[in-house]
Amino acid sequence: MRTVDWDPQGYVTLIDQRALPAEVHILRLRTAGEVADAIRTMAVRGAPALGIAAALGLGLSACDSTGATAEAVLADLESAAAELRAARPTAVNIAWAVDRVLRAAGEAAAGGIDRVRQAVLEESRRLADEDVEVNRRLSAHGAALLQDGDTVIHHCNTGALAAVDYGTALGVIRTAHEQGKRIHVLVDETRPRLQGSRLTAWELQRLHIPFEIIPDSAAGSFLRAGEVAAVLVGADRVAANGDVGNKIGTYMLALAAKDNAVPFYCALPTSTIDLSLPTGEGIPIEWRDPGEVLDLMSAGQPVAPAGARARNPAFDITPARLVTAFVTEVGVLRAPFPSALASAVKEASRP
Amino acid sequence: MRTVDWDPQGYVTLIDQRALPAEVHILRLRTAGEVADAIRTMAVRGAPALGIAAALGLGLSACDSTGATAEAVLADLESAAAELRAARPTAVNIAWAVDRVLRAAGEAAAGGIDRVRQAVLEESRRLADEDVEVNRRLSAHGAALLQDGDTVIHHCNTGALAAVDYGTALGVIRTAHEQGKRIHVLVDETRPRLQGSRLTAWELQRLHIPFEIIPDSAAGSFLRAGEVAAVLVGADRVAANGDVGNKIGTYMLALAAKDNAVPFYCALPTSTIDLSLPTGEGIPIEWRDPGEVLDLMSAGQPVAPAGARARNPAFDITPARLVTAFVTEVGVLRAPFPSALASAVKEASRP
Repeated sequence: MRTVDWDPQGYVTLIDQRALPAEVHILRLRTAGEVADAIRTMAVRGAPALGIAAALGLGLSACDSTGATAEAVLADLESAAAELRAARPTAVNIAWAVDRVLRAAGEAAAGGIDRVRQAVLEESRRLADEDVEVNRRLSAHGAALLQDGDTVIHHCNTGALAAVDYGTALGVIRTAHEQGKRIHVLVDETRPRLQGSRLTAWELQRLHIPFEIIPDSAAGSFLRAGEVAAVLVGADRVAANGDVGNKIGTYMLALAAKDNAVPFYCALPTSTIDLSLPTGEGIPIEWRDPGEVLDLMSAGQPVAPAGARARNPAFDITPARLVTAFVTEVGVLRAPFPSALASAVKEASRP
Repeated sequence: MRTVDWDPQGYVTLIDQRALPAEVHILRLRTAGEVADAIRTMAVRGAPALGIAAALGLGLSACDSTGATAEAVLADLESAAAELRAARPTAVNIAWAVDRVLRAAGEAAAGGIDRVRQAVLEESRRLADEDVEVNRRLSAHGAALLQDGDTVIHHCNTGALAAVDYGTALGVIRTAHEQGKRIHVLVDETRPRLQGSRLTAWELQRLHIPFEIIPDSAAGSFLRAGEVAAVLVGADRVAANGDVGNKIGTYMLALAAKDNAVPFYCALPTSTIDLSLPTGEGIPIEWRDPGEVLDLMSAGQPVAPAGARARNPAFDITPARLVTAFVTEVGVLRAPFPSALASAVKEASRP
């Protein structure tokens, strides 16, 4: 099943990622507000999955709208879009997907309410289908970078659970594995929410890809030991110059890769590239609840002494100089990144 | 009270660091084997504290020995020393302290059994007293490196709990604070055993030094933001060339400091310097139970899916090129480190 999907009975289904790996629990969401809640509370996460969840949320909004005119429905869509865009700030995919659906809705407005509803549903479901296709294409490009026998380090979760299906950086590993290459994955546990231990490990186990979980802080030690052929991460937003906004810890991992001359690959659909931002300085960083650090999140048992405070930035910026290549659905992009990223976005948007 | 101490009634007392911060529980150990167990299970940890605990463990062995001659008592001491040295491999302080006590015992052997016992007790208690004094001296040298208003990042626990009292890197922070400088500490939580969240936070709270806990992987992001004046860590063993064996994550933290031109200081008693090892390659790295990673250690609640495996190196090697200076009881040592470290060891051993 898909991580996020449209059910023909008129609701959005989500695999609740907070319950994994203990339990596979499916959420059924009936309003755009419920989708925004699911995004805020991280029932769904991962840049591509966030984009599609938001798009399908607009599908719910279109169905729910009681507007008497196409314009009134468009106004309801705009209002839902604002709530969805604000749900999480760092991943650009939400804004990208919402904009595409709103454009389709606007173009259909002349045809009346039913045409608007139909356009929203069609466009959001098209985006979901495209996401799977784009992931498979970028994964094929990336798999060519891996050799039989390679050990790779992977940060956070970038698998099927982070997209509609298949995944980005983890999709690259999956394709290499499906090609018969023996790939061993060192899975960063990814504090504080442990997406590596909980989600990536769960996916790799189901795919029968060998892996071991490591503390994020141990990645450098394995890189120094010469055990690692490549580091693979996803992205939440890439600026025009190639600076990468991604899960906290990506920057330190990229430094350790560089210090040991191990290639650092960032795998992403071109929808994650934000050409409107010249550099990573402009990427908004989400700060999450200090409780995720203080009480080990899912364990619900305080670790730090009572009254202790924490700071919890969910993302960091990795400067472009530390990136070996970007793996996208239109190919592997190497420096100079400004021109390569701009060309890739252009090529991807060609009908 | 001291983290580790000799009780005149003939036992060793330890603050059980596994119970903190929830509970201050004191262990009373009656044999060298019990001390070795406490070291293995991390009831006591921190390079200086490990050395003194082992030395006092030999005190217990000397009292317990049923040997009829001084030679027989020395043989029992050698056997206890072997068990203590093997309890944890990375910190050189255990071997250093055990060697000093055995030397004192050997020199006293001609005087008979009672002189041997007395020499062991005196030397081990002298080492404990010296540890406090050495920490205070190195802390004073280090405090001169910090300015009023500085924010510093600290990794693992290097406070009173990691020594007999006062601490090394945390001792530097404490002295600066006692001098009236306003120091703010970003405390690396220090996965997997969370010595930062559990122990360093507890110590800083009691000292009224302001702090915030951060995930280890977030340190780079605060360094990049220009918020941090210095990084301060301890050491478990420093090789003759200045390579540092220390808590896992130190290497990646040092890389992030270097990338942002923030000084990286390593604070340690000269007893942590191992001139017998030319480089860090020779420092033995302890691998600990994967369960510390898989079930979040103290929470006892599995996070990863059943059957998942983990790798858990407890220490890493930070190359000397990433160290700005070593802070020791004989002063602040700057590059070239080979000569500076050798001179410091020589100066410290002068009677």
